[in-house]
Amino acid sequence: MPLMTSWVASANSADCPFPLNNLPYGVFSTAALTPRCGVAIGDQILDVKTAEAVGWISVTEGAVFDEPRWNKLMALGQDAWAKTRNRLTELLAEDAADQGALADLLTPIADAELHMPIEVSEYTDFYAGRHHAFNVGTMFRGPENALPPNWLHIPIGYNGRASSVVVSGTDIRRPWGQLKGPQDDMPRFAPSARFDIELEMGAIVGTPSDGPISVREADANIFGYVLLNDWSARDIQAWEYQPLGPFQAKATATSISPWIVTAAALEPFRCDTPEREFELLDHLKDVGPMLFDIELEVSLAPEGKDASTIARTNYSEMYYSAAQQLAHHTTSGCSMRTGDLLGSGTISGPEKHNRGSLLELSWGGKEPFTLDTGETRSFINDGDTLTLHGVAKADDYQIGFGTCTGKVLPALDDPYSRN
Amino acid sequence: MPLMTSWVASANSADCPFPLNNLPYGVFSTAALTPRCGVAIGDQILDVKTAEAVGWISVTEGAVFDEPRWNKLMALGQDAWAKTRNRLTELLAEDAADQGALADLLTPIADAELHMPIEVSEYTDFYAGRHHAFNVGTMFRGPENALPPNWLHIPIGYNGRASSVVVSGTDIRRPWGQLKGPQDDMPRFAPSARFDIELEMGAIVGTPSDGPISVREADANIFGYVLLNDWSARDIQAWEYQPLGPFQAKATATSISPWIVTAAALEPFRCDTPEREFELLDHLKDVGPMLFDIELEVSLAPEGKDASTIARTNYSEMYYSAAQQLAHHTTSGCSMRTGDLLGSGTISGPEKHNRGSLLELSWGGKEPFTLDTGETRSFINDGDTLTLHGVAKADDYQIGFGTCTGKVLPALDDPYSRN
Repeated sequence: MPLMTSWVASANSADCPFPLNNLPYGVFSTAALTPRCGVAIGDQILDVKTAEAVGWISVTEGAVFDEPRWNKLMALGQDAWAKTRNRLTELLAEDAADQGALADLLTPIADAELHMPIEVSEYTDFYAGRHHAFNVGTMFRGPENALPPNWLHIPIGYNGRASSVVVSGTDIRRPWGQLKGPQDDMPRFAPSARFDIELEMGAIVGTPSDGPISVREADANIFGYVLLNDWSARDIQAWEYQPLGPFQAKATATSISPWIVTAAALEPFRCDTPEREFELLDHLKDVGPMLFDIELEVSLAPEGKDASTIARTNYSEMYYSAAQQLAHHTTSGCSMRTGDLLGSGTISGPEKHNRGSLLELSWGGKEPFTLDTGETRSFINDGDTLTLHGVAKADDYQIGFGTCTGKVLPALDDPYSRN
Repeated sequence: MPLMTSWVASANSADCPFPLNNLPYGVFSTAALTPRCGVAIGDQILDVKTAEAVGWISVTEGAVFDEPRWNKLMALGQDAWAKTRNRLTELLAEDAADQGALADLLTPIADAELHMPIEVSEYTDFYAGRHHAFNVGTMFRGPENALPPNWLHIPIGYNGRASSVVVSGTDIRRPWGQLKGPQDDMPRFAPSARFDIELEMGAIVGTPSDGPISVREADANIFGYVLLNDWSARDIQAWEYQPLGPFQAKATATSISPWIVTAAALEPFRCDTPEREFELLDHLKDVGPMLFDIELEVSLAPEGKDASTIARTNYSEMYYSAAQQLAHHTTSGCSMRTGDLLGSGTISGPEKHNRGSLLELSWGGKEPFTLDTGETRSFINDGDTLTLHGVAKADDYQIGFGTCTGKVLPALDDPYSRN
């Protein structure tokens, strides 16, 4: 598919993250405008709430965009999603009528504050990138036992905490937790000293379901994708995670990028899952190219200094797609709801510079890595800003995700002082 | 505290589960009444929605009981809870004025359908009963390694799935799942053959919090308690749970009893946690008697046959209280919201007949147990109805929880046929 051109001129350059082909959905506000649904086009945001209110867009009889979140549209399903996207494409295309009137609904992105684009119903995090699972398993159990026996047969996942999901730009306070290091006789309560990121993609469930759904249905129920950073306290996790999995290690925060890139915008970038050692059981089998070719990067900026790119990888490194994860999620009859958020699991690639967590980049802290500034890191320092970047690249346009960023603030001296 | 008498005569007998001392909160409907908040008194329910609408109760300026769930009151905090309870006590006491008018707001419990009393925000399940953890650990790892090293220092918990929580009386469909038994070369997708219950208490968070809270604050934030059955597919769990914990094994359903017994009603039944081998760290220490003396039972009724009591235990067998679980839940900064539900973990006692799961009662299926009907069970058969019972007993009155019941329906021939 070629670049589609818009009357919003900034959307028409080959390196613009938000061309007419993209149309990602967010929630924005300005000094003059309360938080509301908007769609990014070039360096502008179209006010979708007002566009609906004045009659430019009509999806159903009632209002769909009267709340500062996209959940109402998400719940309506694929036909409504296509209708909305088609109408927005029409309104913003180069040859659109009424460009003057529509231009009044534009706000420069630079002037807007971006908010959580959805109300998260529940949050599930997977562990479905093979290189990451192999790296972490090797560190903890050696390369022969790196992958648990179930790993090649089901997308391993666990339930996270929806109340911890925040939008990109939110500062992240280093957590306290119960820790017991190899040198400690007894556990102690202290700030995490091994605070980390996980580079992930988040898939957002639009259409709800009740009972098991097929991979094909699951794929159709996914509204869109965001960048997702699952902040992780490795030392808290090491002490708490046996036998029931991570809990407080993952509950401090999970950041998502503010723009939902729709499944529709990503269609041209579909690609296959990797070759498999074991055929998946029927209910999890691929039903076509299940992944997307999305280039991903992590950068780290020490306080007051320039950012260094510390990792580059691609969403196509996943072993299981979001649709396969969602299908697995429903096997036991689990109801899925509009606004459920599924983290892909950390996306690492085969090489050292492809690793999507500091745990892997520093090999558990044993091999600190060097930033462009000359400083080294094993885990996150106070004041560091970590940023995820994502983009799908066609020949003459890009589908950008924007960034997912967060600055780590020092732990409180007394974690109970806030209360 | 003695029995408090009511003008609703059925509330005044020593064996009534719902005397004036109790006043549990539920949501009910009848042929004539839409679902609404109600409080149980004797064998009747007082329509709290109407009581508020006509001016008998006024908690705040706006309506608190205009929705069929208790979340609005829960969010208002302890003072509003006390005000509501005091006013309901006044209205229903033996010497109350206006008994005739209030009697018009009564519905016999027998005529009402009971619904979910709250909207569950998120659901967390703990593993904080020592006898259960020891029994399960012994089966899987032997008695020397039964308790994981962290177990005596933190209440181990994992996030469950709020969308799976249903009210008592809801039929439970036996789930399918990916299984790999010791005899299987490869995993297969099949109905669970080891479907089980977990006898638990659920604590309901009323007051929200942001950041770490102390055990004392946590205790004050708990609105009330319910019986909770965390239906568990042991064979799905065995294959999936390493390394990140239970997932689909626990996602079929979790049933709760329809009546929320308030923390206030349970105050006279406070009792101490068990003696500890290791002192807890300061942030988790007991701040008084943290548990409640609540007698618990499980009964099993095969299809069309009488129920047998298969286990008797007590909530005082817990190692960690709900307040300690909630405090731990917030250590890393995790926000808690009105409507969060915390499962205690399976409550077993020291003896064989005190075990709160079939896994323990049949010792992993190796020692089937016998029902009063002469039949034996290792795990749940299709058509079995499992019921939890709970009551706190004073000298001359009881605080009853009612029951938490569910019938297990056979697995679907094709789990995808519903879609």
